[in-house]
Amino acid sequence: MTSTASLTSRLEPVTDVGGKLCAVIDELAGFLAEQAAINDRTGQFARDSVARLTEAGVLAACAPVADGGFGLESLYDLAVVTSRLAQADASVAIAAYMHLALSSYYARTVRCAPAEQRAGLAQRQWLAAIGRREMIVCSAVAEPGVDPSRLNTTARQSDVGWVINGRKALASISPAATHFYTRLKGETDAGAIQGTVMISRDAPGVEVRDNWDGLGLRGSGSGEVIFSGVALPSAALSPRGGWGTRNARGYEGRAATSAPLLAVYLGIAEAAHDMAVASLAGGPNSRTRAASAGVKVLVAEMELRMAAARGTLHTVLADIDAHVSDAAPRSLPAEVGRSLMAGCVAAGMVVERAATEVVDLAMQVCGGRSYVAGHPLGRICRDVRACWFMRPHPLAEEWLDFLADPHPQEPDVS
Amino acid sequence: MTSTASLTSRLEPVTDVGGKLCAVIDELAGFLAEQAAINDRTGQFARDSVARLTEAGVLAACAPVADGGFGLESLYDLAVVTSRLAQADASVAIAAYMHLALSSYYARTVRCAPAEQRAGLAQRQWLAAIGRREMIVCSAVAEPGVDPSRLNTTARQSDVGWVINGRKALASISPAATHFYTRLKGETDAGAIQGTVMISRDAPGVEVRDNWDGLGLRGSGSGEVIFSGVALPSAALSPRGGWGTRNARGYEGRAATSAPLLAVYLGIAEAAHDMAVASLAGGPNSRTRAASAGVKVLVAEMELRMAAARGTLHTVLADIDAHVSDAAPRSLPAEVGRSLMAGCVAAGMVVERAATEVVDLAMQVCGGRSYVAGHPLGRICRDVRACWFMRPHPLAEEWLDFLADPHPQEPDVS
Amino acid sequence: MTSTASLTSRLEPVTDVGGKLCAVIDELAGFLAEQAAINDRTGQFARDSVARLTEAGVLAACAPVADGGFGLESLYDLAVVTSRLAQADASVAIAAYMHLALSSYYARTVRCAPAEQRAGLAQRQWLAAIGRREMIVCSAVAEPGVDPSRLNTTARQSDVGWVINGRKALASISPAATHFYTRLKGETDAGAIQGTVMISRDAPGVEVRDNWDGLGLRGSGSGEVIFSGVALPSAALSPRGGWGTRNARGYEGRAATSAPLLAVYLGIAEAAHDMAVASLAGGPNSRTRAASAGVKVLVAEMELRMAAARGTLHTVLADIDAHVSDAAPRSLPAEVGRSLMAGCVAAGMVVERAATEVVDLAMQVCGGRSYVAGHPLGRICRDVRACWFMRPHPLAEEWLDFLADPHPQEPDVS
Amino acid sequence: MTSTASLTSRLEPVTDVGGKLCAVIDELAGFLAEQAAINDRTGQFARDSVARLTEAGVLAACAPVADGGFGLESLYDLAVVTSRLAQADASVAIAAYMHLALSSYYARTVRCAPAEQRAGLAQRQWLAAIGRREMIVCSAVAEPGVDPSRLNTTARQSDVGWVINGRKALASISPAATHFYTRLKGETDAGAIQGTVMISRDAPGVEVRDNWDGLGLRGSGSGEVIFSGVALPSAALSPRGGWGTRNARGYEGRAATSAPLLAVYLGIAEAAHDMAVASLAGGPNSRTRAASAGVKVLVAEMELRMAAARGTLHTVLADIDAHVSDAAPRSLPAEVGRSLMAGCVAAGMVVERAATEVVDLAMQVCGGRSYVAGHPLGRICRDVRACWFMRPHPLAEEWLDFLADPHPQEPDVS
Repeated sequence: MTSTASLTSRLEPVTDVGGKLCAVIDELAGFLAEQAAINDRTGQFARDSVARLTEAGVLAACAPVADGGFGLESLYDLAVVTSRLAQADASVAIAAYMHLALSSYYARTVRCAPAEQRAGLAQRQWLAAIGRREMIVCSAVAEPGVDPSRLNTTARQSDVGWVINGRKALASISPAATHFYTRLKGETDAGAIQGTVMISRDAPGVEVRDNWDGLGLRGSGSGEVIFSGVALPSAALSPRGGWGTRNARGYEGRAATSAPLLAVYLGIAEAAHDMAVASLAGGPNSRTRAASAGVKVLVAEMELRMAAARGTLHTVLADIDAHVSDAAPRSLPAEVGRSLMAGCVAAGMVVERAATEVVDLAMQVCGGRSYVAGHPLGRICRDVRACWFMRPHPLAEEWLDFLADPHPQEPDVS
Repeated sequence: MTSTASLTSRLEPVTDVGGKLCAVIDELAGFLAEQAAINDRTGQFARDSVARLTEAGVLAACAPVADGGFGLESLYDLAVVTSRLAQADASVAIAAYMHLALSSYYARTVRCAPAEQRAGLAQRQWLAAIGRREMIVCSAVAEPGVDPSRLNTTARQSDVGWVINGRKALASISPAATHFYTRLKGETDAGAIQGTVMISRDAPGVEVRDNWDGLGLRGSGSGEVIFSGVALPSAALSPRGGWGTRNARGYEGRAATSAPLLAVYLGIAEAAHDMAVASLAGGPNSRTRAASAGVKVLVAEMELRMAAARGTLHTVLADIDAHVSDAAPRSLPAEVGRSLMAGCVAAGMVVERAATEVVDLAMQVCGGRSYVAGHPLGRICRDVRACWFMRPHPLAEEWLDFLADPHPQEPDVS
Repeated sequence: MTSTASLTSRLEPVTDVGGKLCAVIDELAGFLAEQAAINDRTGQFARDSVARLTEAGVLAACAPVADGGFGLESLYDLAVVTSRLAQADASVAIAAYMHLALSSYYARTVRCAPAEQRAGLAQRQWLAAIGRREMIVCSAVAEPGVDPSRLNTTARQSDVGWVINGRKALASISPAATHFYTRLKGETDAGAIQGTVMISRDAPGVEVRDNWDGLGLRGSGSGEVIFSGVALPSAALSPRGGWGTRNARGYEGRAATSAPLLAVYLGIAEAAHDMAVASLAGGPNSRTRAASAGVKVLVAEMELRMAAARGTLHTVLADIDAHVSDAAPRSLPAEVGRSLMAGCVAAGMVVERAATEVVDLAMQVCGGRSYVAGHPLGRICRDVRACWFMRPHPLAEEWLDFLADPHPQEPDVS
Repeated sequence: MTSTASLTSRLEPVTDVGGKLCAVIDELAGFLAEQAAINDRTGQFARDSVARLTEAGVLAACAPVADGGFGLESLYDLAVVTSRLAQADASVAIAAYMHLALSSYYARTVRCAPAEQRAGLAQRQWLAAIGRREMIVCSAVAEPGVDPSRLNTTARQSDVGWVINGRKALASISPAATHFYTRLKGETDAGAIQGTVMISRDAPGVEVRDNWDGLGLRGSGSGEVIFSGVALPSAALSPRGGWGTRNARGYEGRAATSAPLLAVYLGIAEAAHDMAVASLAGGPNSRTRAASAGVKVLVAEMELRMAAARGTLHTVLADIDAHVSDAAPRSLPAEVGRSLMAGCVAAGMVVERAATEVVDLAMQVCGGRSYVAGHPLGRICRDVRACWFMRPHPLAEEWLDFLADPHPQEPDVS
């Protein structure tokens, strides 16, 4: 295991555990790629692929070994695993990642908690269930067009706890999920707060619509989840700051959750790049084409973008990992979190631009055959454009303000 | 009628005839746009749209008024007409354009021929049939990956004429075509030559596969056409230079045929641009979004690309029109043709880059709602990428060599 | 004379007068280019070049023929003239343009005035003096970092007229100017207004510093002009709207004055492009270099940028010319002016990006020899970067807001 | 010491030795920056700056501690040192780097040689002299426009050894050099070979012209060195492969020597970025400007390019370091060397594009004040363009072929 990376080949895991997971995924890659084509055509959730990943333990990656998991701690390797999945099927990569990112966060919470508190943590129980392959968790947070600090989903205080109402969207992996991790507005007697809850799919009032019909990532199961009067006990709601505020202490968590997501787009680009290069190796005119200046420049420009994406992502992942892996959530100074988030947003834009451009270049290298329905580059061309909407910064138009202002006037309300 | 153009609004016709055709298309735009969504989903040829265009006389645009046409002579206005069609449905625009470009070429041939020869020209008969709405001609030339000077379709000399065998692809509008204009290898006793023939759909041995299943332009009917032992009389083949040579005199014709095609991509970009700007005019967060630096820069960059595309296309179209409209095909000096073609190739790359970028920017301006199947930008995002494969220069990788070498060593074999 | 343009060669004049002026400049081009090198090295104003242009009547271009001028009316040809100057020496082009743009504005004012008023117009007298080669006018407007509607230069009302105090910068051609056209704050009894005045260099209190020491355009004489208690009669001040307001009616005038300025950057790019292409025609390795994919792509990308710049500028100039040439200043509807200005700003950005990129590409095509002091591309590389600071929109950071907002809330205060 | 890097701050050393060197340079930075302005204006070699670096031991960085050096082994830290120098003065950075890169190569040669051979190596003696501050070595290799495998400088075999004749250019630091490391054509009885020699400045026939007059890097002393009948003993020439061949085994050495050079351009970009951001912190309009969308986008785009350049350079340097540091020169498999070189070339293009763009953006952020002679961005704008001519791949036009062809037909002639 080494901690360096090559600009000219795919990212490699830096831990033994990461290596084992990658080996498992390499075994499944052919099956996943076949399913990708089918699910893209039908628009159905990649149910069989997720089932295989569950069986193979990939979804238990972050659960402790004792519980049946892999004990994956490295965010870097979480990204490498995600990029390998995306090379085969970006839909499955994003679906799996949503569950894995939460798992990883729970594992860090448990790992960094004082020893005497660990056993009592809800996260400890969740990880055990994940390790037993009994739990798949879906991040049911997004409400399109709504600022994450002002969500419309509510938890109203009742005699026996909370009553949840709301409509979540872009809930990837929801058709297979057993649980929903949700952010909402807690309406307490003392005023409104932000909070998070874990909701079981079995709870009365939970409806999974399985209605995702996207331009791309069609197998990701990113449809709506509706909560209609779902009842939870009092202890189920974890407060997450005052209503309408942004917690600067939360940046490290956002960076830790977002950076590995970028590996989805890197993986997509790698798949496109490899198809394009392979297309030059055979066929009637491939030798002539490969020798033409017009194709050479397309290939060389692909290489430059791959290098920039790999180098930038490698660097930011290792940096975030070094700061975050052994730090309890929200324990880092706000300015460290902000700096990590700035790196994450910058890396996100570099990867996003590189990935969309590589896919476009790859289609041109491949030529007209890639413009036929069913060619994998046609799917990839749609999948990769999710990068504009599933981004480190939740409101797409804010990334520029964030990067442009190195010293914002932002109250730390943690 | 003016001959100037604004960088900030769509191109306007420069002749009265062009104005009339645009008015007809504006009437049909709503119907075409509805059909566009349907045909994109089903992957079926835009049969009803083409029927409407036929009825309304749009496909008779280049036929003489006396024959029931509009008498359109301006290549500039042919492009404007095409851009208007593309704003409603790029599939229909490309399908119609293939027929119109040939019509326009026939009209120029007749117009510029000595008066005494005109009546005897085959082109004269074709235009009359087009004017009567009895003829739709499909350009059945392309053989993917094959150099246009070395096509595999053959005309073998027989006792009574020619026997045609071959397989053509990317034959847009073929499901509605009554005739196929084809380039092929004429195998004569004196050796091989290049040639063109017009083949009736009714001829024994013609098969229209209607099997286009593209990533985009799904309603364009760009499938295969097969010729199996199709018999033609001796006079049916027009020679077009020695086998394997490129006729430098042919550049003006190529430029004249290719430049207006670029209006398809301009029209696509205009549609995307307008949807994006409209999306900022309403909705819950539109005011906040429109005021953010992140969205402003997307809009401003769209405007710059629209300006570059419009200005470049306007200029090259007017230039080509001025040189070509009143010149018989292949009558211009080779160096003039090469210069026109260089302008056309450069304009093609400028428009192609602008159009793909505008569509990508438009999706980001619109936000996540544009990433849902059925949103018109999702279709446009796929349609616009045809620009890489349906280009002024037939072999995609040659544009760079062409532009890079201002004084090539190219024999003029005309 | 034709009104079309080729994307692959330099812009040509559309009027006979323009043609004559271009012929005059072509004669002088060798001398101007020699002087360009000298003035760049020493940082001195291009005094001899401006003297030659004066003698040859180029600076009298817009004066009536009866007064000794050329009677140039076309803004398009004003731009072509400017681009030809810039091909030889961008410093002289910008210096001459500042005088010519004002001359052109005066000529339009006279031309469009009711016949009975013409003789009495101050502009009529100025043009006559310009025609006699007795007047060179300098635009002494800019105050760096100051919003043009809130300038610091003042005209205080006195018993006998006005007393002017202020410091102007970027006053190109000032070392040779006989007069200074100035914008300022008029402090009247009724409150502050914006106004313009014409100040003779001979007036007591005028100081021309001749202290321009720019990174580029070193021969342009763009230094400071100081007004210290300069006395003017009451009628000398022309009111230009209320203090701090922006006059939407002024957009057409701004567009008319700014668009031809862009030809400076086009001319620079053309000079760089031509040097680069010429460098491939000789020398020990030129054949090998020209055939390499690495150099081909540089050349092809130059061609694309030249095409975009030429097409966009050609289009916007013809459009502005068509609207403005025969319209009295401030007589067009505000929305027309805004649309023309939007085209001008968009064209400015397209030309600016193209020009800086072409120069950078040209240096790479030329190779290391262009990185030696004294090579003309070294000068051009610095000259072209003036585009960021001498722009259609006076405050550099505003172009984006202007383009991004198609329907601003802007009071028309004309 | 950590081996990770932040995308949002400058690269940090990964070894203690690197940290000490950076501390030394930070002390000298003010002096170097002052001298940079002076030398740029006068065009003189940065003699005083190089003298200070010599005194402070920076030029002895790679010599063993026992000899008076720092014992620097890490190529990564060699790059960090170089970037810090470039932040103060790019001319000095490139001058020092040429000496340091050779020193580093000698140190690796000694370090990786079998213990019993080390004492006898010439490189051992050179390092000792460098450690005593008695030797500064100049890379006198380049002959402009000449393929490095076919240089014109010759070593003719004589009775007592070799006689050297030739003219070298771009010999940075030559005015201060005591020795010249040279590549040439050895003309032996058995035919021509490639070879390297070390030539003392004191040798009869050596002439240092000190005639560099570049557009940028004006203090780097990159002039010509002439060898006229310089006599060397027989053992002085080290053979480096057959005449006209390229040694694929040499790629690792080229990568090791080239990658840290890229830190010059990163350092330049960092200086420009920091000046631009600082310019927004004060001055009359800075608050308004910083809040405008037009300036925000400039700043954000700078950040993205800095992130891409840092991430890519960090990654490639760590990768090369890991492979090369403990490997004797030319001992790695050719394919490893080629892969490292491919990463180096890709990183070079990413850094080169990022650096030139950041400098251009920085000038726009700073506004018109940066367009005045003497403003440091004016110097930086010229310095950074050296990246096109002082590149990892010696023939500028070959980078594209190199990257485009992953599996070339290249004989390994080592």
